[in-house]
Amino acid sequence: MMRIAVVGVGRIGLTHAESLAKRVKGAQLVAVTTTRPERAAAAREQCGAIAVYPDLEALLGAERLDAVVIASSTSAHADNVVRCADAGLDILCEKPLALNLADCDRAIAAVERAGTKLMMGHVRRFDAGHVEAKRFIEAGAIGRPLVFRSISGDTDPPPPSFADLAVSGGLLVDAMYHDLYLARWLVADEIERVYAEGGALVDPAIGAVGDVDNSVVTLRFTGGAMGSLYASRTCRYGHDLRIEVIGDEGAVQIGRFRQTPVRLLDRGGVHHDMPWTTPDRLGDAFDAELQAFLDCLIHGTPSPVTGEESRATVAAALAATRSLHEGRPVTVRSIQTEN
Amino acid sequence: MMRIAVVGVGRIGLTHAESLAKRVKGAQLVAVTTTRPERAAAAREQCGAIAVYPDLEALLGAERLDAVVIASSTSAHADNVVRCADAGLDILCEKPLALNLADCDRAIAAVERAGTKLMMGHVRRFDAGHVEAKRFIEAGAIGRPLVFRSISGDTDPPPPSFADLAVSGGLLVDAMYHDLYLARWLVADEIERVYAEGGALVDPAIGAVGDVDNSVVTLRFTGGAMGSLYASRTCRYGHDLRIEVIGDEGAVQIGRFRQTPVRLLDRGGVHHDMPWTTPDRLGDAFDAELQAFLDCLIHGTPSPVTGEESRATVAAALAATRSLHEGRPVTVRSIQTEN
Amino acid sequence: MMRIAVVGVGRIGLTHAESLAKRVKGAQLVAVTTTRPERAAAAREQCGAIAVYPDLEALLGAERLDAVVIASSTSAHADNVVRCADAGLDILCEKPLALNLADCDRAIAAVERAGTKLMMGHVRRFDAGHVEAKRFIEAGAIGRPLVFRSISGDTDPPPPSFADLAVSGGLLVDAMYHDLYLARWLVADEIERVYAEGGALVDPAIGAVGDVDNSVVTLRFTGGAMGSLYASRTCRYGHDLRIEVIGDEGAVQIGRFRQTPVRLLDRGGVHHDMPWTTPDRLGDAFDAELQAFLDCLIHGTPSPVTGEESRATVAAALAATRSLHEGRPVTVRSIQTEN
Amino acid sequence: MMRIAVVGVGRIGLTHAESLAKRVKGAQLVAVTTTRPERAAAAREQCGAIAVYPDLEALLGAERLDAVVIASSTSAHADNVVRCADAGLDILCEKPLALNLADCDRAIAAVERAGTKLMMGHVRRFDAGHVEAKRFIEAGAIGRPLVFRSISGDTDPPPPSFADLAVSGGLLVDAMYHDLYLARWLVADEIERVYAEGGALVDPAIGAVGDVDNSVVTLRFTGGAMGSLYASRTCRYGHDLRIEVIGDEGAVQIGRFRQTPVRLLDRGGVHHDMPWTTPDRLGDAFDAELQAFLDCLIHGTPSPVTGEESRATVAAALAATRSLHEGRPVTVRSIQTEN
Repeated sequence: MMRIAVVGVGRIGLTHAESLAKRVKGAQLVAVTTTRPERAAAAREQCGAIAVYPDLEALLGAERLDAVVIASSTSAHADNVVRCADAGLDILCEKPLALNLADCDRAIAAVERAGTKLMMGHVRRFDAGHVEAKRFIEAGAIGRPLVFRSISGDTDPPPPSFADLAVSGGLLVDAMYHDLYLARWLVADEIERVYAEGGALVDPAIGAVGDVDNSVVTLRFTGGAMGSLYASRTCRYGHDLRIEVIGDEGAVQIGRFRQTPVRLLDRGGVHHDMPWTTPDRLGDAFDAELQAFLDCLIHGTPSPVTGEESRATVAAALAATRSLHEGRPVTVRSIQTEN
Repeated sequence: MMRIAVVGVGRIGLTHAESLAKRVKGAQLVAVTTTRPERAAAAREQCGAIAVYPDLEALLGAERLDAVVIASSTSAHADNVVRCADAGLDILCEKPLALNLADCDRAIAAVERAGTKLMMGHVRRFDAGHVEAKRFIEAGAIGRPLVFRSISGDTDPPPPSFADLAVSGGLLVDAMYHDLYLARWLVADEIERVYAEGGALVDPAIGAVGDVDNSVVTLRFTGGAMGSLYASRTCRYGHDLRIEVIGDEGAVQIGRFRQTPVRLLDRGGVHHDMPWTTPDRLGDAFDAELQAFLDCLIHGTPSPVTGEESRATVAAALAATRSLHEGRPVTVRSIQTEN
Repeated sequence: MMRIAVVGVGRIGLTHAESLAKRVKGAQLVAVTTTRPERAAAAREQCGAIAVYPDLEALLGAERLDAVVIASSTSAHADNVVRCADAGLDILCEKPLALNLADCDRAIAAVERAGTKLMMGHVRRFDAGHVEAKRFIEAGAIGRPLVFRSISGDTDPPPPSFADLAVSGGLLVDAMYHDLYLARWLVADEIERVYAEGGALVDPAIGAVGDVDNSVVTLRFTGGAMGSLYASRTCRYGHDLRIEVIGDEGAVQIGRFRQTPVRLLDRGGVHHDMPWTTPDRLGDAFDAELQAFLDCLIHGTPSPVTGEESRATVAAALAATRSLHEGRPVTVRSIQTEN
Repeated sequence: MMRIAVVGVGRIGLTHAESLAKRVKGAQLVAVTTTRPERAAAAREQCGAIAVYPDLEALLGAERLDAVVIASSTSAHADNVVRCADAGLDILCEKPLALNLADCDRAIAAVERAGTKLMMGHVRRFDAGHVEAKRFIEAGAIGRPLVFRSISGDTDPPPPSFADLAVSGGLLVDAMYHDLYLARWLVADEIERVYAEGGALVDPAIGAVGDVDNSVVTLRFTGGAMGSLYASRTCRYGHDLRIEVIGDEGAVQIGRFRQTPVRLLDRGGVHHDMPWTTPDRLGDAFDAELQAFLDCLIHGTPSPVTGEESRATVAAALAATRSLHEGRPVTVRSIQTEN
């Protein structure tokens, strides 16, 4: 059994902790960190008898661990990765690795130096639908990918304190990050340049901290393929995650407009529900992600999602953010050479 | 151009007349029959300059015709077929051929004697979906058919004067007739016995004339396959025509829950429309049916839907009606030997 | 924590054991029973450090328990329920309660005598889709239920040794049981009479033990509503569980033709997958069922699925089995008065 | 009856001619123009006894007409509109009105001078799905439109001689034109700036004449809303026309992945067909468009799709074409002020 701790038990950290405590084979959840008593209580309620420490230092000082899951605030990811790598631990880090490329590099270098594992928490990689789509593409079912289209919608904006670019990176670095990553993964090519339009069209409080609540981003890949991405923080009808990849021989689509398989039919037509939350839509993928992490610890296999992949995604997201603010296409290379 | 008249311009007769006047290649609509001035006016409005006669005799006395479409009331079908066959005309007759087997036999014999053509108006045979399903089955895509399941729902009951068993034959002979016919056609076997449950569950006026508004019928085919049919006159959410044929290697399904390809998504979920009328659901099939009739006149090919097929369907529907009233399974043979 | 054991760790018993060991709040899995070493090993592999006993007697002699889950072979259900009730334990028993009404009565009486709880393992009651459909019906969204239609398809027949009517009760008592139960639950009325057609159309080995692999059953409820049920053991395209309830104001449908939300589109059309196994289709419902059991133990609330409900369902299934063999409609009352 | 001629009987012209000859109320098709004997023969075959003239001049010299349908090559649209307006005729002109704004202005001015009607052939405006979506938006069902997303895919590229920008305007002016028009119509705002990516990714012959076969275009509307459009000439799985408009209270979607309502289910999953051609997808909309034209002639109502709307769409398409070639966002105003 691998002894694991979870650093930060906000919404996603607590999900990981419960999964480790109850369902992931080969894992023993030994501790979490939080300074908030009500989160500590929630963690104990959901995960059983575990230790709680106020911070990473206290945790590392007190516990003998094999690995950590880092689910702290994004701006602390890089420092936490460096500290845990220095302590010789294997790491699952929530996305993105950092809010800038210099911090990404620092974290990646620390892991390389330590010779430990770093896996990034790109949960959609472990959703059965995305996995099957990737398999179709690799098997040649759609020919050569030409265009990646996506929509990512959350029902309500986060608090402005979170939308703040210095905290979460904003809509493009925090949320569209997933689509940028999946675009690279499914098209199997590098993003060359991006163009973004966006605005705080619904929530002025989001605009007041410099972020947008709706954005459309165009991608150009090195090999000529294109991307057309849309992210929304005001998708009132549900949590809408869809991707399609159109190739020169066919297409593959991921996504759905049904949650439960129930339809009501009356004189007003046909009615059914829609996924509403991330667990509604991705459910088992969170467990599958953690199981993949454990499996690579147990079997000594390479990390399925590397820090370098997160770095490349951050670069694309930063290019898109710059495009949004400067009103012109921006090459990813220009972001990379700056850093 | 074939000179054609339509006998009876109720709802379906007028649909046929307009189709012949405007869209069917090789057809010239020359006349219709009706005694009701407002139907005569509607026919002229929709079909242009055509003659109108009070009845079949007047029509046959005045016009030189190649063929007729019989869309009179069901109880007059057999007499009309006999009269037209005697006059040497080719005939498209609305279903069912008659309300009893003796009348079916009389009509079939007249057509044989005259050496003219008789095609039955089984419109769903000419719907692209049903045609494709039949093709799948014949190509072996589902293996050997094991079970035929169907639902046929109309949004509102007809007037009791029509539901009357002596006029239309009632729910099983008039409406479930289609499913009984399609069951034989798709399973490609004869019905051996039937068992029916039913009731005037919603509309007492339907019950008062001896008919039912909802009925469930079980079929047993000679070769062992089975059927599970449901017909409703109170299907409040739309005109729901669905069939599935399950074989020992797969299944084919016909039917849908969408009319226009539009979805509305809001905080209450996902909403869309449903077919509401027969033209919504079957649309082009009416034209295709008439075109098939014209094509077989022009090219001298055999009728694609024979009187014998209608007779066999009437026999099954009568057996089901008897089962409904006697509360026991009834063999189709028992109906046939009585007549 | 409630100390629980699982009696029998075949496919479904092991599923329950794992769920109790890992996911159900308030449960502590302490032991299972099996005489087969490989099932004991599988249970320990999936459930951690638990005791394994050869049979119920050994279990009861050695462990202090609060409750048991009975997942032994159906023919032993009643005896096991009686024995556990006599031992003062609360019981979750897999369906059906017994293969005849006398055994049902014996088991129910033992539980009443002991004053313990008996909950039946009707898993679909705990599926989110079925729950939502029931809620729609109770809220009046479809008006008064008129017709219940269902299909239950398994991809492959069980071994003939299981299909044997003396072991599992055959297709109607073992598999269509679910639909008969759900029909009563959703229509909220008693079944008055049934008529069944069926045959060993695909697998002669099933026929050789007196069972059928495909069957169509018609129901008549006391209040006039009807049912049209189809069960198949040779549903080659997947695990197809569908229900629709049509009322006099609308309808509700449960079921789906998608597993993962992925579509492949190529020159041959559109392709996607289908649920294949029970966990594919019902997934979380197994956990939800056990949690409901635990919740009623912890909070002292009544069993959500009683032995009487199982008894009524067994009566309907036996009536259908008799109808199948005798070729006539059979009243449920006639089965009940015999016993 | 309005006496109407069709100028040009290529694919779309012949569709219009047949519709006028057979189905549109109030229309009498009297003539078509073509210099190709086989198209003349096809027109007579499908439309009955009509006159055929080599060109517009010959037509106008010989026939007394009320109106014309212009379906000549795009580069001749403006000249034809001017000539017909000068002849005092009402005009239905295929889209786009011209390949540049100066020609658009010339055509619009001629119609204004003549006081005749000009209706543009924007067929999707008359598709029931698009009409219903517009109605939802106008009724406030989705709140304020935030983002317009579309895909328009044709299965195979046109001949390079047609793709030529001087002939058809290329992918953006010829095909994405529809989406640009519908974006303005559904969002009910003007397009401020556009950004395009594209390439001849599949068909080098398309690239050799300066056009692209796949393109992604981003829109920014004056009021802040955005658009994300994708057009493909190599959509191998079918004719895929989809739109969604996401508002701040909900969304509306147009489009579908089914042609016939038939599903085949086998061990390989679920399979169905997809619309393949424009008539598959839009069918009745062509008749509805011509009927709308006739209705506005008969009732003297204004044109439902004006020349000005086409001009604004051409401006947006030209801006997108320039963006494609210059690699930067381009304002629609910059195109308009140039002309």
